[in-house]
Amino acid sequence: MAEALTSEAILAATEEVLRRYGPAKATVVDVAKALGVSHGSVYRHFATKAALREAVTRRWLDAVHEQMTPRFDQGLTVGETLKTWLQQLFDKKRHGHTEDPELFATFQVLVKESKAIPEYHIRHMVGLVARIISAGVETQEFVTDDVAATAKAVWDATEKFHHPAHAQEWGDPHIQDAFDAVVSLVIAGLRYNRTPSAAGDA
Amino acid sequence: MAEALTSEAILAATEEVLRRYGPAKATVVDVAKALGVSHGSVYRHFATKAALREAVTRRWLDAVHEQMTPRFDQGLTVGETLKTWLQQLFDKKRHGHTEDPELFATFQVLVKESKAIPEYHIRHMVGLVARIISAGVETQEFVTDDVAATAKAVWDATEKFHHPAHAQEWGDPHIQDAFDAVVSLVIAGLRYNRTPSAAGDA
Repeated sequence: MAEALTSEAILAATEEVLRRYGPAKATVVDVAKALGVSHGSVYRHFATKAALREAVTRRWLDAVHEQMTPRFDQGLTVGETLKTWLQQLFDKKRHGHTEDPELFATFQVLVKESKAIPEYHIRHMVGLVARIISAGVETQEFVTDDVAATAKAVWDATEKFHHPAHAQEWGDPHIQDAFDAVVSLVIAGLRYNRTPSAAGDA
Repeated sequence: MAEALTSEAILAATEEVLRRYGPAKATVVDVAKALGVSHGSVYRHFATKAALREAVTRRWLDAVHEQMTPRFDQGLTVGETLKTWLQQLFDKKRHGHTEDPELFATFQVLVKESKAIPEYHIRHMVGLVARIISAGVETQEFVTDDVAATAKAVWDATEKFHHPAHAQEWGDPHIQDAFDAVVSLVIAGLRYNRTPSAAGDA
């Protein structure tokens, strides 16, 4: 059996063990038991428990990033594409929070275990926003001379709708109105934004 | 001595006691001792410990609100006035957090003890933002047909720089750049914002 053991199988089993026992109680022995192997077999793939937990977190985030790749629909303005993307992100966070609270809570814990993980995630997500903004600059719908900085500003301005620290606000009956108003303001800003230096001439 | 005891003196003493002992340990007896009166004298002004704590929190917030009243300088655009106001708020939060961490932490706890208190605070602060936006609509610098909703959107879009859940990010060496980029985007949006229904015509 040990020769058939893949890293992917270990990661899938680890996610299931974490979901079942929670991040505080899950152990490498639990993962090995779930796979019917010795814990030594697991350690041959992942040198430490921390390395295993980080790998399963990255795997989960990579799947999120894959799902969040922006789709450019011919019938939509780039502003509408951005709004759809931010709505998809918000719905994913909200529903993750309300529909599978154990797994959501588990990954909230795991993401914070290493400083590298949230940085990896945010860098990737801001990169996806930058891809949408670049498309808008190309069609002259958006104005910015620093796509990366503007993408970070869009990410930061919408944190209420994706940062886990705000999760308890997502059940508020007016939260969708708040989302619509912020996104409308942000998209208007993208259509008219000047960097502080350029704005001085206006 | 008891006849000279005012609510204001009790509130000032309560703030000092909370600062010294922390919100978990401070008691009405500590407040009475600090004032040299019986705890019965304190209860004649505030019926319960919760009422006393809520009153001291409102008093603290009222002082914050007073300091945050926007100033309209003839030499500034309304956009610059808003940026200055948001910067003042951010600096107040940051410095409160780093320079007087005990008092800041104390009021973070107190603010959350009653649902009415954060609502009271946010309603007031969003009202101050609305006052600035109204001034911008009057000078035709800003465009919006719903000042209150737009003020709430500005508040929500800048939460990274005033919501206590983000306090640990305020020491980041790039946080001022992030502030500048978000505020620039938001002000550009105010100059160009249309509500979703009106935007459909554009």
